[in-house]
Amino acid sequence: MTPRAHNFGAGPAVLPVEVLTEAREALLSFGDTGVGILELSHRSDAFVAVREEAAARLRRLAGAGDDWAVLFLQGGASLQFHMVPLNLGADADYVVTGVWAQKAYEEARRLGPARVAATTEGTGHDRLPDALDVRPGAAFVHYTSNNTIYGTQWPAPPGAGVAPLVCDASSDIFSRPLDLARHALVYAGAQKNLGPAGVTVVLARRDLLARSAGRDLPPMLDYAVQARHDSSYNTCPTFGIYVVGLVARWLEAQGGLAALAERNAAKATRVYAALDAAPHLYRGHARPEARSLMNVTFRLRDEALERRFLSQAEARGLVGLKGHRTLGGLRASLYNALPDAAVDALVSLLEDFARENG
Amino acid sequence: MTPRAHNFGAGPAVLPVEVLTEAREALLSFGDTGVGILELSHRSDAFVAVREEAAARLRRLAGAGDDWAVLFLQGGASLQFHMVPLNLGADADYVVTGVWAQKAYEEARRLGPARVAATTEGTGHDRLPDALDVRPGAAFVHYTSNNTIYGTQWPAPPGAGVAPLVCDASSDIFSRPLDLARHALVYAGAQKNLGPAGVTVVLARRDLLARSAGRDLPPMLDYAVQARHDSSYNTCPTFGIYVVGLVARWLEAQGGLAALAERNAAKATRVYAALDAAPHLYRGHARPEARSLMNVTFRLRDEALERRFLSQAEARGLVGLKGHRTLGGLRASLYNALPDAAVDALVSLLEDFARENG
Repeated sequence: MTPRAHNFGAGPAVLPVEVLTEAREALLSFGDTGVGILELSHRSDAFVAVREEAAARLRRLAGAGDDWAVLFLQGGASLQFHMVPLNLGADADYVVTGVWAQKAYEEARRLGPARVAATTEGTGHDRLPDALDVRPGAAFVHYTSNNTIYGTQWPAPPGAGVAPLVCDASSDIFSRPLDLARHALVYAGAQKNLGPAGVTVVLARRDLLARSAGRDLPPMLDYAVQARHDSSYNTCPTFGIYVVGLVARWLEAQGGLAALAERNAAKATRVYAALDAAPHLYRGHARPEARSLMNVTFRLRDEALERRFLSQAEARGLVGLKGHRTLGGLRASLYNALPDAAVDALVSLLEDFARENG
Repeated sequence: MTPRAHNFGAGPAVLPVEVLTEAREALLSFGDTGVGILELSHRSDAFVAVREEAAARLRRLAGAGDDWAVLFLQGGASLQFHMVPLNLGADADYVVTGVWAQKAYEEARRLGPARVAATTEGTGHDRLPDALDVRPGAAFVHYTSNNTIYGTQWPAPPGAGVAPLVCDASSDIFSRPLDLARHALVYAGAQKNLGPAGVTVVLARRDLLARSAGRDLPPMLDYAVQARHDSSYNTCPTFGIYVVGLVARWLEAQGGLAALAERNAAKATRVYAALDAAPHLYRGHARPEARSLMNVTFRLRDEALERRFLSQAEARGLVGLKGHRTLGGLRASLYNALPDAAVDALVSLLEDFARENG
């Protein structure tokens, strides 16, 4: 087998090797069922136990009580951009801190009079807004906790006043403790910090689910229907749910979210320090106070150097460092599952490259 | 490892052991990438090649030329129940031959004046309708090629007149040659004959995609957007697409759809013959002329006998034989990947059980 590379990709992203090894063993026969995990009926006792255990672990990690629904849906954050205003009402306030936040806003605009509570577009989304202009009567206030493309991250949830706060946490969910009490709904495509592509986790306060009552929404797009059917209104994405459950177990085994937050901060601090040590060569996109611990975005002095950096990275087994096409440049994603050894390798490369191109 | 059971489940269902073995090897590192298949960026060259190869194989199997789009979506057939009328218009005619067909019809009714072109509800969906009452001006005519719950199957697509014919082929796609020229759109949740749960294949004639133009649909629900972005408007369900590609390769290696149709017919014929040989004990649900080659539905003389049958089955390593909760009784699903050895085991059980309970 080709040795595993250090994978800094933004998503689908690196998963814990322990999780992959266990999933591997389940493909031909899951437990003592004699049936592979991909082949197991979503209504079988064995799979229902998998789904319930995954949900229970997510619930524990999030600190979600029985007044919260934990849903496994499909379609990624992009389908949530539609489902959130469809279910909760589109007279909502959006905090636009990047491409994904903008797309979420546009989906709400399709459905009703959504408005922008703040935007950082004027400065290329290099920071977070100083203040939000939110209405107490808004259906909800929507923000993106971590901006994967620009490399900015809210250090804590923004103040949304009395309106319910909705968070797209796709790229930093469970990278640190989640202050669930300040939120009404949190969603995340799994493919960055939680598992494979194709499953979306939604944590929704149950009182909000009543908002779709009597509105006759398509059942697949109705949170209340999905909650009533334990995410199995139709065939759920079984394998994705299984892997999310393994990742959740791994997160707990790492010592939980406080321990992970500490490790993630240490990882990011080392990378930013290496960048800051060579300001003649590296230029970060995000302003220091808004820096993401998950996605480090930076440019080199010119594009030829960026190409050379990427090719040296590849030669050392570091992959996925190319920036998003919107912003260009380079990006190192440092999700939960990225091992310290990968950070070691990246820091060495940054240092060596700075020396060689001083 | 627990030996593999004979899995007669209706979906998620048995997959070819060759496919599972190959997928297993890709979990920690796919090819020479050093990155596991779950961790590979959906925009990486390696994954784009996987997706394109899977689409090309499906295209070949379906006999679809460039005038057809091949899409990998999420949400199963249930989301297609919404997307088909959303994109093509809801003034459509539905052939109601079971629970899933009924649900498809209800979704269209939510959006517009869909009507029933025929229904077999009066006889418990034990047959196919003799004739359809379809309107030449209907937006489309929708039918379900195989009714998983009731065990009926159209031997050939119904005559829909001049209206575009739309088929939910979730439970029999690629179990036999597909007469694509008679259709305008064919969709299938992968988890029966094509791969794991969480990916839906849609074959759509490109001229139909224009119907959503100017309608400002949510991009995730717009076939034209998905086609324009090669199923990657957002992060596609990468692993599901990969496995569907492996299954498609396996189908080609089996000799293609004509060879599979022959094998599937032989498998079903043996099972039906064993049932017909003991009419004092077994009673099929579907009328003989409407029998499905994919899902064999039957009852025993009484429920106590059914329970005993299921427990003897399990003792012999045959699983997934319990019928759908709507219909009760028993069901043996005989999808492409179900090996002949499983049919041997089922036929022996049917014969032995008939002898013992004569």
